[in-house]
Amino acid sequence: MAFFQARTDLALEAREYVENVNGELRGIIVDEYEKKEIGVSVTKVQITTKNSAKLLGKPKGTYITLEVPDLCQCGENGDVSENHEKVAAEISEHLIQLLPQKKEKLQVLVVGLGNRDVTADALGPAVAEHLNISRHMLQEFGRLGLEKKQGIITSCIVPGVMAKTGMETAEIVKGIVKETTPDAVIVIDALASRSTKRLNRTIQISNTGIHPGSGVGNHRNAIDEETLGIPVIAIGVPTVVDAATIVADALEKMHKELQETAFLQARDSVALSSLYNMYVTAKDIDSTIKRVSFTLAEALNMTFEKEFEE
Amino acid sequence: MAFFQARTDLALEAREYVENVNGELRGIIVDEYEKKEIGVSVTKVQITTKNSAKLLGKPKGTYITLEVPDLCQCGENGDVSENHEKVAAEISEHLIQLLPQKKEKLQVLVVGLGNRDVTADALGPAVAEHLNISRHMLQEFGRLGLEKKQGIITSCIVPGVMAKTGMETAEIVKGIVKETTPDAVIVIDALASRSTKRLNRTIQISNTGIHPGSGVGNHRNAIDEETLGIPVIAIGVPTVVDAATIVADALEKMHKELQETAFLQARDSVALSSLYNMYVTAKDIDSTIKRVSFTLAEALNMTFEKEFEE
Amino acid sequence: MAFFQARTDLALEAREYVENVNGELRGIIVDEYEKKEIGVSVTKVQITTKNSAKLLGKPKGTYITLEVPDLCQCGENGDVSENHEKVAAEISEHLIQLLPQKKEKLQVLVVGLGNRDVTADALGPAVAEHLNISRHMLQEFGRLGLEKKQGIITSCIVPGVMAKTGMETAEIVKGIVKETTPDAVIVIDALASRSTKRLNRTIQISNTGIHPGSGVGNHRNAIDEETLGIPVIAIGVPTVVDAATIVADALEKMHKELQETAFLQARDSVALSSLYNMYVTAKDIDSTIKRVSFTLAEALNMTFEKEFEE
Amino acid sequence: MAFFQARTDLALEAREYVENVNGELRGIIVDEYEKKEIGVSVTKVQITTKNSAKLLGKPKGTYITLEVPDLCQCGENGDVSENHEKVAAEISEHLIQLLPQKKEKLQVLVVGLGNRDVTADALGPAVAEHLNISRHMLQEFGRLGLEKKQGIITSCIVPGVMAKTGMETAEIVKGIVKETTPDAVIVIDALASRSTKRLNRTIQISNTGIHPGSGVGNHRNAIDEETLGIPVIAIGVPTVVDAATIVADALEKMHKELQETAFLQARDSVALSSLYNMYVTAKDIDSTIKRVSFTLAEALNMTFEKEFEE
Repeated sequence: MAFFQARTDLALEAREYVENVNGELRGIIVDEYEKKEIGVSVTKVQITTKNSAKLLGKPKGTYITLEVPDLCQCGENGDVSENHEKVAAEISEHLIQLLPQKKEKLQVLVVGLGNRDVTADALGPAVAEHLNISRHMLQEFGRLGLEKKQGIITSCIVPGVMAKTGMETAEIVKGIVKETTPDAVIVIDALASRSTKRLNRTIQISNTGIHPGSGVGNHRNAIDEETLGIPVIAIGVPTVVDAATIVADALEKMHKELQETAFLQARDSVALSSLYNMYVTAKDIDSTIKRVSFTLAEALNMTFEKEFEE
Repeated sequence: MAFFQARTDLALEAREYVENVNGELRGIIVDEYEKKEIGVSVTKVQITTKNSAKLLGKPKGTYITLEVPDLCQCGENGDVSENHEKVAAEISEHLIQLLPQKKEKLQVLVVGLGNRDVTADALGPAVAEHLNISRHMLQEFGRLGLEKKQGIITSCIVPGVMAKTGMETAEIVKGIVKETTPDAVIVIDALASRSTKRLNRTIQISNTGIHPGSGVGNHRNAIDEETLGIPVIAIGVPTVVDAATIVADALEKMHKELQETAFLQARDSVALSSLYNMYVTAKDIDSTIKRVSFTLAEALNMTFEKEFEE
Repeated sequence: MAFFQARTDLALEAREYVENVNGELRGIIVDEYEKKEIGVSVTKVQITTKNSAKLLGKPKGTYITLEVPDLCQCGENGDVSENHEKVAAEISEHLIQLLPQKKEKLQVLVVGLGNRDVTADALGPAVAEHLNISRHMLQEFGRLGLEKKQGIITSCIVPGVMAKTGMETAEIVKGIVKETTPDAVIVIDALASRSTKRLNRTIQISNTGIHPGSGVGNHRNAIDEETLGIPVIAIGVPTVVDAATIVADALEKMHKELQETAFLQARDSVALSSLYNMYVTAKDIDSTIKRVSFTLAEALNMTFEKEFEE
Repeated sequence: MAFFQARTDLALEAREYVENVNGELRGIIVDEYEKKEIGVSVTKVQITTKNSAKLLGKPKGTYITLEVPDLCQCGENGDVSENHEKVAAEISEHLIQLLPQKKEKLQVLVVGLGNRDVTADALGPAVAEHLNISRHMLQEFGRLGLEKKQGIITSCIVPGVMAKTGMETAEIVKGIVKETTPDAVIVIDALASRSTKRLNRTIQISNTGIHPGSGVGNHRNAIDEETLGIPVIAIGVPTVVDAATIVADALEKMHKELQETAFLQARDSVALSSLYNMYVTAKDIDSTIKRVSFTLAEALNMTFEKEFEE
């Protein structure tokens, strides 16, 4: 997770934020609709120009955001919501649209980012745990080793965090991509949001990959089509809010109510620096991560069963 | 962990807070000193009257707070700070003073509170993992089953959280205490602090047990001498700050700089309720918990080697 | 897990073994049938006399064994077999027959035995992880806190192994039962089998509880109706074979082919003692435990939804 | 772990086995001595010819075996034996001899092989957990980012097992080596032994890398100097014995006592195939893995502090 480096990892929020300040925006196409029967709101943000990318602090590309209020709700069986298969099917549909079109079997490498030892950052490793992996069957037994339904051949890596590997995740993924030559990469990651209300109930799918640090510039450590040479789909769910963001947002709301000078004077009395490297997360994050990762894995496994016209 | 129920689990902070408001306090004895050679500040707060207990929202008793700036620092060997044995010895010394004095071998039940699946709440289970447990050796082989150094006979339980057990932790501990008749209980728990600066570097040792919810009243679920019939020592380390506390504190600091009406008007614009059940914790909480639990376990194991004069 | 103390924890195998030696047996009633539509064989062994109990090394009572060849098979979705809901329903049916009949809501304590840090012994803790627990809702909100379907009120404890707790599991469970007064206990445990062919595909349900060490005598550490005062249902799945058993069985088979003297002489050359505390288990035990625990938890959750005629 | 593919992963055992059959051997140099002060026996087996490699089923190279009876013993503090620092220093000494000599700072990639979810196979991931990793500090801050003592720059990967990654471990390591260009690789793995007496108390260090399947031939999936282009040191500790091996060895011992025909006839009655994919391991494997991994990590961290003459 790109903890704290961006105040939001969600294009949706970046747009809202910028909109508040600037009004209408050129180079940003937004399409919103609701799927009432499954309780999901879909927002598609397309960033089409360099300028709008700079403004939003997000690379050019397509960002699909699904808001699923009961994604983190417990179903009656205690594990997943009743709705979760329908939500998984919806996610799978958007994924398939972003994946490259190919006549023969597509090979996809899934990358589970994050730290499996920190609950709020363990989404990637948790999803990886539940995936149907098939590449080794193809390698060993050829097409006969695959089940009928396996339209997409899959491999998966959980690279671990830099403090434990000593390597940039981008280096690890780049090396594995060169050696095993997949057609596309799907990256799963926990995200930071601006708002506690979005935590664990929003899914962002984009074709822009992952850009630690700022979204624009500093491409050395990006995991995207430019650095890997193949399409990179990123799937993320916000699980934390930067602690400083929460305080800053509270102050901002007060600002509107106060005189400028009084506010600035007062703001200086609040030491945001003490919140450096602190994050806000939910109390029941462990069971939430389990449920969300289960639904995402289901969505991916559905996707991998996509049948190509041969 | 008593997540969010109290804005602080530290007697030290309760006193500071009350002091700011009320000045000097009757029924509260405070003793502060520094152990420079090991970089530890010790504060002993004694709450001696019912009134002062009510004022601070903490039960009567003794609270020893050790502030250890490098408790969460990494030593050169990557695991624990060089200093950790000296810190463990210091903790052990205070523990021994709070344990009941007895001529023959003392039997102690250690209770590791918290949720092992939530990093910031896993301190109790993590400490339990490293303890030297001896009661079963005594039961099976008698005194011959013990090593020379085992002055205190130990047993240990990690009860799990109510959402998974369906039982109050107090019920579980009470049942086990009645059945196995230890002389004292030591409870290990992660705490909430008011300040991010205290996270993972403060150790509180008290003889007042654990009181979920408010510190005074509601005794049904307390784990203390009154409910168990034997002394209960509590050891806690703050690992989280309530998210609402952080914003509320920021607002409070602004308050001093602003006119009353302007402030109240502005404050209402900030929706603290959205922070309900959210907590703030450090980014590197996983490695921190490992190191802190290692030092606490060392302190307990040192304590268990205490030799009684027979 | 009662590792190695008995060469088999399965009544089914005890009977087969004794039958080979003694032919027909008094005091043992056996009923066998197949449920072809779900691929399950059911064997019900009733031990009705003291003598037959002694002969089989198992306490008097009812033992239901379900043989489910695809219990440990991977379903197409990589997690559980297609069949698992039907198998869960079958298990649930037998469970309900062994549970006490009561007009009002039954309260059940589930005990997840075993060591969560040893894969082959982690079945009990893994099942506990997936259960719907409701007792705390009833305590806090009364009947209104329960969902309609919750016919059985549940609590759950994962006591841990003696080397880490210093206490007999029986002591811990006894204490908790006295304090929280359930109507019955369900114990989940990994078992030892005589045969690698039964590993991870056999489910034994009995109303005789758990008897570490030999099945008869030494009641001090038993978890059964005699020691707890309430019915104890035990659910077990064999996950290991004692290593010495495997070699001993191999030798026994050779015995039949060899002359007596030659065999005895030769047998002495094999040092079975080197196999003490060793066990045999399957290579893919981690994914197997996950799948089996998922099906057992489903069976229990189905059971807990039993509606009582009120 | 190369579970079951070889009946032994230890060169020591391969030599013993072959010696029993063939007597003296050309192309195999053996050097044995004891370090009584730390209770360690050292055996150095050098396989110098193609023929002797074929005979032993191990590639040409140097194999150092340390037998440490108390490697898996619990020290008084419950975690590691008193002796473990001295044992770590001994391991480190042998490691340094096998690492390439270089004037400037050496860069080493450590690979923790095995399945973190199967206790007996989790040695590699467990060692990786405790290592001092420094490469990212060098990348980010240059030489100033390193502590004085860091003579060897380290990175680390835990690739996971093929069933979960869909990739050969060799592919993953090859890709990362090409991308991050270390000077040498150290691979940590749990091994299979022929003898339960060697479990968890033998450490094998070799400069021949890892060869899944047979030791000779099938180089596609090897992790060695030939495939990676840089030296590969392998460190292994036997944690399991193949179940079929145990029975086969028991039969072999009987063989010597029996007439040929009688034996062959009898042997056919034993179905070794039922032991396919089963392994034998120790009951206390979880605490053993913890202690052994701690000592190995200490040995590696000592090695990484090696000072080069600059």
